[in-house]
Amino acid sequence: MRRVAVIGIGITKFGEHWDRSLRDLALEAGIKAITDAGLEGEKIDAGYLGNMAAGNFAMQEHLGALLADELGLNPIPVTRVEAACASGAVAFRQAYMAVASGVHDIVVAGGVEKMTDLDTETVTKILSAAGDQEWEAFQGATFPALYALMMRAYMIKYGAKEEDFAYIAVKNHRHAKNVEYAQFRNEITVEQVMESKYVAEPIKVLDSSPITDGAAAVILAPLEIAYSYTSEPVEVLASAQASDTIALHSREDITFLRATRIAADRAYRQANITPSQIDVAEVHDAFTIGEVLALEGLGIFDRGTAYRAARENLTTYGGQLVVNPSGGLKAAGHPVGATGIKQIYEVVLQLRGKAGNRQVKNASYGLTNNVGGSGATSVVHIFGKVY
Amino acid sequence: MRRVAVIGIGITKFGEHWDRSLRDLALEAGIKAITDAGLEGEKIDAGYLGNMAAGNFAMQEHLGALLADELGLNPIPVTRVEAACASGAVAFRQAYMAVASGVHDIVVAGGVEKMTDLDTETVTKILSAAGDQEWEAFQGATFPALYALMMRAYMIKYGAKEEDFAYIAVKNHRHAKNVEYAQFRNEITVEQVMESKYVAEPIKVLDSSPITDGAAAVILAPLEIAYSYTSEPVEVLASAQASDTIALHSREDITFLRATRIAADRAYRQANITPSQIDVAEVHDAFTIGEVLALEGLGIFDRGTAYRAARENLTTYGGQLVVNPSGGLKAAGHPVGATGIKQIYEVVLQLRGKAGNRQVKNASYGLTNNVGGSGATSVVHIFGKVY
Repeated sequence: MRRVAVIGIGITKFGEHWDRSLRDLALEAGIKAITDAGLEGEKIDAGYLGNMAAGNFAMQEHLGALLADELGLNPIPVTRVEAACASGAVAFRQAYMAVASGVHDIVVAGGVEKMTDLDTETVTKILSAAGDQEWEAFQGATFPALYALMMRAYMIKYGAKEEDFAYIAVKNHRHAKNVEYAQFRNEITVEQVMESKYVAEPIKVLDSSPITDGAAAVILAPLEIAYSYTSEPVEVLASAQASDTIALHSREDITFLRATRIAADRAYRQANITPSQIDVAEVHDAFTIGEVLALEGLGIFDRGTAYRAARENLTTYGGQLVVNPSGGLKAAGHPVGATGIKQIYEVVLQLRGKAGNRQVKNASYGLTNNVGGSGATSVVHIFGKVY
Repeated sequence: MRRVAVIGIGITKFGEHWDRSLRDLALEAGIKAITDAGLEGEKIDAGYLGNMAAGNFAMQEHLGALLADELGLNPIPVTRVEAACASGAVAFRQAYMAVASGVHDIVVAGGVEKMTDLDTETVTKILSAAGDQEWEAFQGATFPALYALMMRAYMIKYGAKEEDFAYIAVKNHRHAKNVEYAQFRNEITVEQVMESKYVAEPIKVLDSSPITDGAAAVILAPLEIAYSYTSEPVEVLASAQASDTIALHSREDITFLRATRIAADRAYRQANITPSQIDVAEVHDAFTIGEVLALEGLGIFDRGTAYRAARENLTTYGGQLVVNPSGGLKAAGHPVGATGIKQIYEVVLQLRGKAGNRQVKNASYGLTNNVGGSGATSVVHIFGKVY
């Protein structure tokens, strides 16, 4: 297999784009990534797109063809991949394999979701399709409800308090202050989180990521030609994906994301590094408990300890590593299919050393962890500076 | 890249499965393919699944995780791919790349669609999401309407008559008589086709593929280890995919499928064969005009001539090659996401020489062509006997 690098990145503002469609957003991110790579469009050999639910949000499937057309990429193949909230990372993984295998040279991987055209109740119902429709969604179990079960079980097992989780939301909002594309750039306090309404007890509004429109795109190429396009290629050191039962009730232990652990172990082996070498990580905090489960699944913190990490300033600037410099899903926003690509956008920017006033110092290794559903799909990518 | 073979195949009956769910069908096809390969499930390293619209048909996304779980394949990665009616072939293509690259060894590629739980009008609306929602579907252009435009333009340009197309439906129904999994195993006559009602003039009911439930699955492995599993591996000689504008009105010429031509040219080059060497082909006759456009796009017939092929018995047993021995989408049925995998199932069976009373004599090379939408995605695979 060939070594693969990211040579271009692009992103839209995340937020409520009332005046723009899915194709407008995807187009903006794609063109920015192509421009960032200093490419001409005709150099691109293939594309992969992560999107969860445009079929329900906008009655539009076949998004690969739609966006090949919009981006002027015809006749190259562009393929849509779906794995609920992990759609973006899974699309990136296919792009990685296409380049690593030698089937294609220059490949664009993007993600997009346009969510705000419908009311919140309908959006919540559409998102519940990421779980088991027959055994979870049909019974009324929305995603806040499923994550509430995980959070409650975790709190009982390890003695964590709701306040511990509030520090994660506060930290991610503080990070987002410096992030130009983030949906929420305002700081919040632990008190505000604690006083916000319950969505599904013990999860409160301010533990939860918002409904977001947005798109992101990155360009991959074989490392051997990456320097023709950029002076700062970032290498994809590992790509791993694993699965777990789709329904929460089928798992032996809902306080641990087994698929994340399996994907992470494979990824560290492929990259030949240990968790302690990670300088910066973007992880899947759809709810604050998600960041805790990610950090433990990834082996960056021991089981039953990550809930204290934000409170003890271990996961911010000056700590052990910086987790979610983008503000995470919580503050940067969560346009479902785009999230996995946004994580990669941010980590690549950090490894380039071009993250401005949110730069993680001396960042050499970065990790992204994108999760689908309540943990049934978990995707880990590791990136490294090229020396 | 490594050489890749198909070592196992499985399929369900295509038809109206009122008493079975999407997961039941996928499970049956998957287990049959695994059994056919003489595999144990734990040998499988990854899976790809083609499905167009379970999000709308059953409010269920995240099908990769769902089916990994149902098939007992956790924790391996299983990924859902969507390209409208070409979802199956695109899933197979990802599986092919995963094996060819060396990322995975044994990979299952499947396709499934459960369509008959909803009324026909709703199904037609859901399928219209394969076109351009804003510029086609929203204006009322369903798929019969889009293909009617193509058929009308073709008839005017080349002087073809509706009766010419009727022979294609008659031929495919005749083929399906011997196909145990086909939805319609009854013969029909040219008169019956001509007397059937217009769906969208000049397309009649009996020019059209039906609404179908079904699933199919195949197992891929590196050719070098294929003989440990089967005495009759069939090699994947080429995999190619191309795109065209999603909306029909953006094309220079709607009587020709440009994406099919581009994908086919690449595939013949990769396989190092010419169109005339193909002994058996499964092509995308969602409507009878589809078979004509496929055969011309594939370069098997010259432009403006394929409409006569069925009438002149060139595309059946004893002719130039056998097209759609399965009965095609028209008679075998069209469970959208499964169709691309069914085409591969049938061609592999033929190349094994195990197709019983529908065996194509001395079949050495087989081709499949799966099309998404009105031709915005086209996927060509070429298969060969291993000598």
